Amino acid sequence: MEIKVLKNILNANSQIAEQNHRLLAGKSILAVNVMSSPGAGKTTLMLRTAEELKGKARIAVIEGDVSSSIDTEKLIQAGVTAIQINTDGGCHLDAGMVNSALLNLPLDELDIIFIENVGNLICPGEFDLGEHLKVVISSTPEGEDKPHKYPLLFTITNAVVISKTDLMPYVNFDMDGFCLTVKGLNQKAELFKICGITGDGIGEWGEWIMKNRDIVRANAGKK
Amino acid sequence: MEIKVLKNILNANSQIAEQNHRLLAGKSILAVNVMSSPGAGKTTLMLRTAEELKGKARIAVIEGDVSSSIDTEKLIQAGVTAIQINTDGGCHLDAGMVNSALLNLPLDELDIIFIENVGNLICPGEFDLGEHLKVVISSTPEGEDKPHKYPLLFTITNAVVISKTDLMPYVNFDMDGFCLTVKGLNQKAELFKICGITGDGIGEWGEWIMKNRDIVRANAGKK
Repeated sequence: MEIKVLKNILNANSQIAEQNHRLLAGKSILAVNVMSSPGAGKTTLMLRTAEELKGKARIAVIEGDVSSSIDTEKLIQAGVTAIQINTDGGCHLDAGMVNSALLNLPLDELDIIFIENVGNLICPGEFDLGEHLKVVISSTPEGEDKPHKYPLLFTITNAVVISKTDLMPYVNFDMDGFCLTVKGLNQKAELFKICGITGDGIGEWGEWIMKNRDIVRANAGKK
Repeated sequence: MEIKVLKNILNANSQIAEQNHRLLAGKSILAVNVMSSPGAGKTTLMLRTAEELKGKARIAVIEGDVSSSIDTEKLIQAGVTAIQINTDGGCHLDAGMVNSALLNLPLDELDIIFIENVGNLICPGEFDLGEHLKVVISSTPEGEDKPHKYPLLFTITNAVVISKTDLMPYVNFDMDGFCLTVKGLNQKAELFKICGITGDGIGEWGEWIMKNRDIVRANAGKK
């Protein structure tokens, strides 16, 4: 009985995710679903990415949080277009929530939308949002065993961003072991090593995002 | 419809949680539900606690993980009685899983059982396991805004353990602000500041655990 209900929820979610995808494709907007544990540095990456892509692409951030609007306030203060979704206890964003946010964003003035999911390394993996790319952030203080312990997100993601590389001297994080485990689960996953404080690695990450934005634009042009 | 099903799940969970609680009370065993984000230091705290309580109390750890048995292997290597629950994708432990684990532990030879929940700052808060105490670990690199963004766990917990205090010089963590926010949500929550590497703060934490173990034993004696 529970399984049937879950299937219905997931089917309904998939249908709305497809609507989101069509809406984004129609506007040639790249959408990136950013997932991680709490405190891995999603918002910091968003702030750094906004700086990096300034003048290259017009971006917005959909902020998913159980509660509060702290991150949206930070983004807006930094001049980034951002909209808050509060899940009120919910452990993930779903396609319907993202649809509501999309309808409240100036889509004709945007090139890239980042969807900052709720901080959770498990549940967000079950819900397609209509995005083009999934990205997982994993911070060095969390330890290199995260892909072993939370394999789904690392298996389905397009890229893994290893954040807080500035803490490497102070934490016990086996970078090579981590990268090998990710590649073992998901050979196609791109790997980026970044530091939100110093900006290290943000250039390479920004280039990859822009490359994917060009692909979305080229695909839209073909239609 | 979904709400009804969820209620049924939670009702069924509560009934098994009560069974667990009676079973533990009958054996005068203190049970502690340990919850946190992935990588906040749950297993490290378990290892340090086992050292600290050696000769004072006989402990066991029930290890909850989506996948893998890495943490149970670490504990067993350190001589700690431990049993693994894999949720196979599930985002929290429920009372039924803990019941199965309890039935596989030598209860007559134990004083304290730590239940290391799945790394998730949201979903475990919805599921009572029959424990006496809930404990939330929050690590300094996660940032001081976690109680604002994930309020449920911080509101229902008996104690908050602030871990990785050795990283304070390298991360932007407002300790006073964090403690004030926790107290604002939950005036009764005990606060402990610990470092799993140096052992700082483990003594005070161990004393609190032993005090609670004595309360469980005294209550059992009264019956």
